[in-house]
Amino acid sequence: MKRAATFASLSLLTAAPSGIVQAQAPAGDGQTWRITRAGSQPSAKGSAEYFTGAVRVDPMFPATAPSRVSGGHVTFEPGARSAWHTHPVGQTLVITLGLGWVQQWGGPKQEVRAGDVVWFPPASSTGTAHRPPPP
Amino acid sequence: MKRAATFASLSLLTAAPSGIVQAQAPAGDGQTWRITRAGSQPSAKGSAEYFTGAVRVDPMFPATAPSRVSGGHVTFEPGARSAWHTHPVGQTLVITLGLGWVQQWGGPKQEVRAGDVVWFPPASSTGTAHRPPPP
Repeated sequence: MKRAATFASLSLLTAAPSGIVQAQAPAGDGQTWRITRAGSQPSAKGSAEYFTGAVRVDPMFPATAPSRVSGGHVTFEPGARSAWHTHPVGQTLVITLGLGWVQQWGGPKQEVRAGDVVWFPPASSTGTAHRPPPP
Repeated sequence: MKRAATFASLSLLTAAPSGIVQAQAPAGDGQTWRITRAGSQPSAKGSAEYFTGAVRVDPMFPATAPSRVSGGHVTFEPGARSAWHTHPVGQTLVITLGLGWVQQWGGPKQEVRAGDVVWFPPASSTGTAHRPPPP
């Protein structure tokens, strides 16, 4: 399967209904406000099912009904990339650090930098990767 | 009306369906992926209708159907606070910098720091403010 490029640290915040980023924190009943303290949620390696290369996933918040959005930090080390994947209600990426590539299936590869925000519509097949370092 | 404390820079990312943070970028048809480049969206002062004191709002992404979530950076200068307000599908705050207070109507005031994530359920009346500097 064709993938969205490869190679170079990209750190991003991803807000998406379920999918690759599975938040670890209990969502509770959704009716009570809650504060999740910095450092209280375990950091995890990105699953080999969803990523190639070294990827770290730090959950930020789970989806709490009626909201369907969950959020997490995903850090791609050089050479890391995601598998092609979809999100049922779309996905927003906020690039917080580094330089990377994003791509929609069949479309051109686009370079992204810190501060860029990417929207992928529902059911679009998308990939995220590090840009390779300059030769 | 009682408010959530006052006074000290708090910067946070807020993800919420509509409400205080009105994203500026066009949502388009929602079916096409898009990249919103860093610095391409105008920064605005927080409206006096929603905030007291110096507050800056930098939109990140608008709600794009079927998703109902929009996101923005909100920076509170010392002494600034939000008015009591609600969000129809709840609100998540990610504290990115500084030290502040959050409160739900009738509940205790809670101190928040960078990395903390706060969830407010739908229709809860909430406030956000800077913690005053130590005496």
